[in-house]
Amino acid sequence: MFNQLSIIGCGLIGSSIFKALKKKGLVKKLITFDNDESVTRIIKKEKLTDKIVSSLEEAVHDSQLVLISTPFSSFESIVGSLKKYLKPGTILTDTNSVKKGPDEIIKKINLKNISWIPGHPISGTEKSGPTSGTAELFENRWTILSPSSEADQSDIKKVSDLWESIGSKVKIMSATDHDKILSLTSHLPHVIAYNIVKTTMDNNEKLKTDIIRYSAGGLRDFTRIAASNPTMWKDIFIDNSDLIVDAINNFSRNLEEFKKIIAEKDGKKLLSIFEKAKESREAVIKAGQDTDKPNFGRK
Amino acid sequence: MFNQLSIIGCGLIGSSIFKALKKKGLVKKLITFDNDESVTRIIKKEKLTDKIVSSLEEAVHDSQLVLISTPFSSFESIVGSLKKYLKPGTILTDTNSVKKGPDEIIKKINLKNISWIPGHPISGTEKSGPTSGTAELFENRWTILSPSSEADQSDIKKVSDLWESIGSKVKIMSATDHDKILSLTSHLPHVIAYNIVKTTMDNNEKLKTDIIRYSAGGLRDFTRIAASNPTMWKDIFIDNSDLIVDAINNFSRNLEEFKKIIAEKDGKKLLSIFEKAKESREAVIKAGQDTDKPNFGRK
Repeated sequence: MFNQLSIIGCGLIGSSIFKALKKKGLVKKLITFDNDESVTRIIKKEKLTDKIVSSLEEAVHDSQLVLISTPFSSFESIVGSLKKYLKPGTILTDTNSVKKGPDEIIKKINLKNISWIPGHPISGTEKSGPTSGTAELFENRWTILSPSSEADQSDIKKVSDLWESIGSKVKIMSATDHDKILSLTSHLPHVIAYNIVKTTMDNNEKLKTDIIRYSAGGLRDFTRIAASNPTMWKDIFIDNSDLIVDAINNFSRNLEEFKKIIAEKDGKKLLSIFEKAKESREAVIKAGQDTDKPNFGRK
Repeated sequence: MFNQLSIIGCGLIGSSIFKALKKKGLVKKLITFDNDESVTRIIKKEKLTDKIVSSLEEAVHDSQLVLISTPFSSFESIVGSLKKYLKPGTILTDTNSVKKGPDEIIKKINLKNISWIPGHPISGTEKSGPTSGTAELFENRWTILSPSSEADQSDIKKVSDLWESIGSKVKIMSATDHDKILSLTSHLPHVIAYNIVKTTMDNNEKLKTDIIRYSAGGLRDFTRIAASNPTMWKDIFIDNSDLIVDAINNFSRNLEEFKKIIAEKDGKKLLSIFEKAKESREAVIKAGQDTDKPNFGRK
């Protein structure tokens, strides 16, 4: 599909993309760049890509599509450095978990004749780095593309096809809608997971040991979510700060109400909340977004 | 070990106990009782126990150990009905997720010459009912026993041996400590999971559909926890109300602070919170309370 494609940033997401592309044999020449030497060493050792380069200039030279999958806090400096090397007509895309922030940077840097098709694969794990990447990471997951209304339709199709070729489903929506939906489905849950881990661990050592020991009753699931890549989440919380604060405010209002119901021991109201929550779980499974196996099938 | 053992209540926990005991061949005669006919039909059809009885009197006649694993809201009426049928020296135990409440009921009902050894297996799934029970449910999980200081040591050992024989690790602690620890490791996480599902689903239909569709970014894990047995959780929230309200207050205080850090876009403080949370995750895995597989190994 592409003669030459470049991936800048080879962490969990970048490495999963090139592993999937290589496995399917979909790109003639795959070039990768990462500014972390330990990452490069792993990729070289495991012969994961066709060419590993040591500069951004080499990374994008002659590529039809350039994909940036670094932490968002590096995005501006990378795009700034790339500006003079990108040939007119190149498709530039990303995998950032926020979509308004990258748009603003692209506008500010004012790339000429570059086709900017931003994207976000809603997939990942709590693990980071190239050894955690897998070719199957995107299978049956959604990737959201948020191109501007002026974007070239055939370029949108190329990026869309790329994601579909590695197993993803693709949805196109505005950056505004994306950031709103993700503030609820992903950012708020992460805030809450971090906060519950902090709240339960803010205890004396004896109690802390017991809390860890008996964490299988619910807490352990939150610790998993709270183990995600710190830099990535710092960047998300900063970039989508306003919507996340809104979501926290709604959450807190509901929690105060809920607390009142618990304090009043109102069994009828409790049951009604639980029954509704059960319906949401069924909807998530029906939408193919989780497995129905108890405990996620874990032993 | 026991010639005859009775299990009253054959949901997820009760059925897992008798499946495990049957599998290991540890009890000569296993008697079960459940007041739900559909439950009894399933057990009968699958030939899961030695004898299914239709009254509490038959259920406990001649048994050396009687285990109650019904929802806590039925506990008082069951113990009240059992009172006249229990022979002196019988060991009575339970699997309630709260431990102070059952103690108060036992005191109130004033059973004579009965050996009350309360217990709580910290295991389970979001599924309910006898078809969800498995013989492996307790393997490598903790069961907490909270007998009073006057309890017979050899009876404590019998109940402890019973749990260990089906794969559980056993810890003895006071009902007060149990309810405090569980308010943090299990009850608070469930409050939060219900509340996050409520907060995200309190939106118009269009946004709700999108939220379910893109729930793989974190929310889906909370929907699993929020799909647990409604009656059981109503009972827990009512019985451990005070400690849960305390935990919510601590959580809310921390959340307000966290919100401020997000609103101020304080990257340094965010990173420090995330790094600490990551350490807790490592401690949970080290303590054998979860698998290290990404995404719990789910596809």
